[in-house]
Amino acid sequence: MRKIIIDTDPGQDDALAIMLALGSPDELNVLGVTAVAGNVPLHLTEKNARKICELSGRPEVKVFKGADRPLMRPLVTAEHVHGKTGLDGPDLSEPTMPLQDEPAVDFIIRSLKEEAPNTVSLVVLGPLTNIAQALIRAPEIAQRIEEIVLMGGGFFEGGNITPAAEFNIYVDPHAADIVFRCGAPIVVMPLDVTHKALTTQSRIDAFRALGTKAGDAAVALLDFFERFDEEKYGTDGGPLHDPCTVAYLLRPELFGGRSCNVAVELVSELTLGMTVIDWWGVTDRPKNATVMRDIDADGFFALLTERVGRL
Amino acid sequence: MRKIIIDTDPGQDDALAIMLALGSPDELNVLGVTAVAGNVPLHLTEKNARKICELSGRPEVKVFKGADRPLMRPLVTAEHVHGKTGLDGPDLSEPTMPLQDEPAVDFIIRSLKEEAPNTVSLVVLGPLTNIAQALIRAPEIAQRIEEIVLMGGGFFEGGNITPAAEFNIYVDPHAADIVFRCGAPIVVMPLDVTHKALTTQSRIDAFRALGTKAGDAAVALLDFFERFDEEKYGTDGGPLHDPCTVAYLLRPELFGGRSCNVAVELVSELTLGMTVIDWWGVTDRPKNATVMRDIDADGFFALLTERVGRL
Amino acid sequence: MRKIIIDTDPGQDDALAIMLALGSPDELNVLGVTAVAGNVPLHLTEKNARKICELSGRPEVKVFKGADRPLMRPLVTAEHVHGKTGLDGPDLSEPTMPLQDEPAVDFIIRSLKEEAPNTVSLVVLGPLTNIAQALIRAPEIAQRIEEIVLMGGGFFEGGNITPAAEFNIYVDPHAADIVFRCGAPIVVMPLDVTHKALTTQSRIDAFRALGTKAGDAAVALLDFFERFDEEKYGTDGGPLHDPCTVAYLLRPELFGGRSCNVAVELVSELTLGMTVIDWWGVTDRPKNATVMRDIDADGFFALLTERVGRL
Amino acid sequence: MRKIIIDTDPGQDDALAIMLALGSPDELNVLGVTAVAGNVPLHLTEKNARKICELSGRPEVKVFKGADRPLMRPLVTAEHVHGKTGLDGPDLSEPTMPLQDEPAVDFIIRSLKEEAPNTVSLVVLGPLTNIAQALIRAPEIAQRIEEIVLMGGGFFEGGNITPAAEFNIYVDPHAADIVFRCGAPIVVMPLDVTHKALTTQSRIDAFRALGTKAGDAAVALLDFFERFDEEKYGTDGGPLHDPCTVAYLLRPELFGGRSCNVAVELVSELTLGMTVIDWWGVTDRPKNATVMRDIDADGFFALLTERVGRL
Repeated sequence: MRKIIIDTDPGQDDALAIMLALGSPDELNVLGVTAVAGNVPLHLTEKNARKICELSGRPEVKVFKGADRPLMRPLVTAEHVHGKTGLDGPDLSEPTMPLQDEPAVDFIIRSLKEEAPNTVSLVVLGPLTNIAQALIRAPEIAQRIEEIVLMGGGFFEGGNITPAAEFNIYVDPHAADIVFRCGAPIVVMPLDVTHKALTTQSRIDAFRALGTKAGDAAVALLDFFERFDEEKYGTDGGPLHDPCTVAYLLRPELFGGRSCNVAVELVSELTLGMTVIDWWGVTDRPKNATVMRDIDADGFFALLTERVGRL
Repeated sequence: MRKIIIDTDPGQDDALAIMLALGSPDELNVLGVTAVAGNVPLHLTEKNARKICELSGRPEVKVFKGADRPLMRPLVTAEHVHGKTGLDGPDLSEPTMPLQDEPAVDFIIRSLKEEAPNTVSLVVLGPLTNIAQALIRAPEIAQRIEEIVLMGGGFFEGGNITPAAEFNIYVDPHAADIVFRCGAPIVVMPLDVTHKALTTQSRIDAFRALGTKAGDAAVALLDFFERFDEEKYGTDGGPLHDPCTVAYLLRPELFGGRSCNVAVELVSELTLGMTVIDWWGVTDRPKNATVMRDIDADGFFALLTERVGRL
Repeated sequence: MRKIIIDTDPGQDDALAIMLALGSPDELNVLGVTAVAGNVPLHLTEKNARKICELSGRPEVKVFKGADRPLMRPLVTAEHVHGKTGLDGPDLSEPTMPLQDEPAVDFIIRSLKEEAPNTVSLVVLGPLTNIAQALIRAPEIAQRIEEIVLMGGGFFEGGNITPAAEFNIYVDPHAADIVFRCGAPIVVMPLDVTHKALTTQSRIDAFRALGTKAGDAAVALLDFFERFDEEKYGTDGGPLHDPCTVAYLLRPELFGGRSCNVAVELVSELTLGMTVIDWWGVTDRPKNATVMRDIDADGFFALLTERVGRL
Repeated sequence: MRKIIIDTDPGQDDALAIMLALGSPDELNVLGVTAVAGNVPLHLTEKNARKICELSGRPEVKVFKGADRPLMRPLVTAEHVHGKTGLDGPDLSEPTMPLQDEPAVDFIIRSLKEEAPNTVSLVVLGPLTNIAQALIRAPEIAQRIEEIVLMGGGFFEGGNITPAAEFNIYVDPHAADIVFRCGAPIVVMPLDVTHKALTTQSRIDAFRALGTKAGDAAVALLDFFERFDEEKYGTDGGPLHDPCTVAYLLRPELFGGRSCNVAVELVSELTLGMTVIDWWGVTDRPKNATVMRDIDADGFFALLTERVGRL
């Protein structure tokens, strides 16, 4: 059983990722969920995280509030994708479970220090601000992290918020740079993977067929979420980004990639937040991440549907 | 019949592009060939251009010598791909046809001013230094260019000389920036196209089957040229970049793309020379180029083989 | 009586600044001294801070350990100026007073929250890492800071570690950027001031004339410290940077400057860490700091000598 | 007798520089005056150059038209300083002398090739576009230039158009970079010198006392020109920039400076066009210019007045 902390800015796809994790209690021990500003502001992401825990029937999960802004830049949000609340789609009631008093960054540091070395993984679904803050404050935790599995970046698919940059990295490129240079093992789920994990109608129907409250919520989340990218890309369904990270922890064989160097563009406005991935090994920069490119999309959605069905 | 100037830094794939043009005398009137430093230094590229004209049986073609270095940066060359001479592979004799006295940049400007407006196209196969120099010296020519068809850049395929940048643009990013902002119609053949135009064994065999001197030279050129990328990418054959431009003039229907904004990265070392292509229209930058992404590769090679067969 | 926290990376001139503060107990209440990596690594700066408190007869002063590296960049140190220990010159015994357990950043945040709003000033003598970390972790403290008085930057004098950048800002330009944009009142003592505060022989003699242990230590510190800049600038004495900040709190009338915008260069290697000071108001960037340019150097040294004499 | 080409964007201070040169026929042989866009657009600077030649009684001087825009950036002009015509102040009639047909860049290259090596100096009073274009087109001229004496940049004085950049360099930083890296001997008159050459009332009175048409024109030019900087800096008179270059050719002993590296900031918007001058030798960048810092201002104005008096 792997111990994980989910760092997140829900977001409909974050919601599905959390549901996938909470629906896998035999494999994943969710030590806590830490909220960060990203898709929507922090006061919404922390509330959304609690909504999803309650929807998943897990009100005892510890939810923490983290950074309300990137390290160096003003916050950019994505209500045009996620709706005003960040969880537009289903009709979820206000959460009644509490927010933890401990700040998210303190919790991340404490967990990594209290648990045995290399037994806690960080699953990061939003801008990397919380993780970078933890690394700034306690650089020694880097060598105690089992693995950072993050959704972010893109290479062959380019970016989504700008031609060159994916949203999570773009929002806090300085945080991403700190994380990519920290020395911990990193697995990246870039747009190159997630754009192959499309929420086609038949895949959404499978959630509907569950006939459960969580299944219906998943349908409503996905129906709303896919609208923006379906129109943009002209595809059947939109990319389902964040659950790829949790799926990797459960079934790594669903994904294929390679170890390479990832550097984050910090100085140019034009390419700010781009993940420069040396896929072909044309530089001498050291390998610092395993970057995924392929996914068994059917296997991924089958896993996701099954685990949402357990909630 | 279209009038064209071929600006080039041969290079084996440049050679094939020139042969394709010279093998199409009913459709293309090659006003001149202008050499630039790029794949190898200028003293080699101008000589190689003449070698190819002679190989093509067209010693009367006018060959001009252009810039021996990029506008702002030191010259980077690619002998690791093209060999020491730039045309390693076939055994071509030293050219006897003369080099023109007129500087390449003067010739480009003069041609555009002497010919009727919008009747001369520029086919650019190397760094954009010559074209940018012409635009700097005589900005008014921009509105007299029929079309600039250039091989360069990449987006979904990333770069080749660095993770982010393709060689031609990387070598002289400032020149590329000047060209992309000049206002003339621009068609781009990026790596996204050329990586779909692979020199497979059967395609090379088709040149061999021609049983001509030019056909045999093509085989030798391609055999040498593909080695580097075959090993790098693990494919059957390497991408055949430059002839895509001439093929577009002859058979535009072989290619598919869209009109979008292309901006060149100038300020960051990490992403220097990247062509930031707004394929999905996520910025408000104006469209300034038609960027190709798809190619009918079989049709392309059939055309190329047929026209080399005419030489 | 003003409450201050001294953030410092001693450094001989830091030592004099701390001595000036501790020699002024009627005017300044030193809540704590927080060490940061800068002139020398953190394990030396925190020890040096305690040495100086003991030398000043104030072992009860609370000394805290802060950041051991800049936010985003590798640490650069200045042993070529300060010697191997950072306090080369006098023969000071190892400190016996303890280091506080609380991290420096926590102490800074807690002090600003516990004390009445706008009653605590931060005197910053080194890279701004600790202050930036506090602002990242608790952005709300910005509006509770009475004043940040920092030694750093330069304009008319240019830089010292590079042609454009002064050492403190260069070492952690990202931290400096965060501080200059935080909204708190800021007073800057740049090289433009400190290069007018030269440790001439007669001024050093005045410390010697005190005939005290602290006076003799001051002489030894200054004798060592001035060597580097005397040789570099060919002046009688070197600039005495850090004590200008404390002197400003005691005798603001010794200094003259103006309110203007200060921006920190972050993107160019050539000018990295430069404080771009809009002294003449040629931009529309808002005023965010009072930048000093003039000093009554004799008055400054008279004050410093008198207060060292009280230790 | 030194042969010079004056490259210029008049501008009142350019006018005085040209008058100083034309008033010194025993020492300076003005091969030509080449106009460039800068203080005002090219159609005005070329006309203004001819006006000044006629005012100086030298209608036979060859005036050439050069670049109407910088290499890479849109043109920035300074009508707020120079007035709408660039020569606001005196009432000068439209010029009747002709403009040369040969483009300025061609003339510069031809002159340097036709005259004996290292016998022609370039006196540059505006953006360096023309000179950079000549160096791009014919890099081999660099080693035939006797000396480039340019007004531009600043270090201890910072900039004037932005806090970091002086106008001439800021308008075409890429051109400046090319010039500073070209290898020719370069003498720089930065703001550090010119801000010590103030057009005080008594110095203007000296021109009035000449009682000549040229003297009266000088008075009108200076009266207009000093307004902007007098208000900005609160000084008696404004800095008289451009004539320092010609004065250096006539009386180098009026100036003091040192040999050091000058690099031009190209990548950061904040510091774009800054001349980063390694005055203290803190980098290992090679010396590429003699940068002046001191001037005998009285001697300078005495020379200027005397020579204007000869016109």
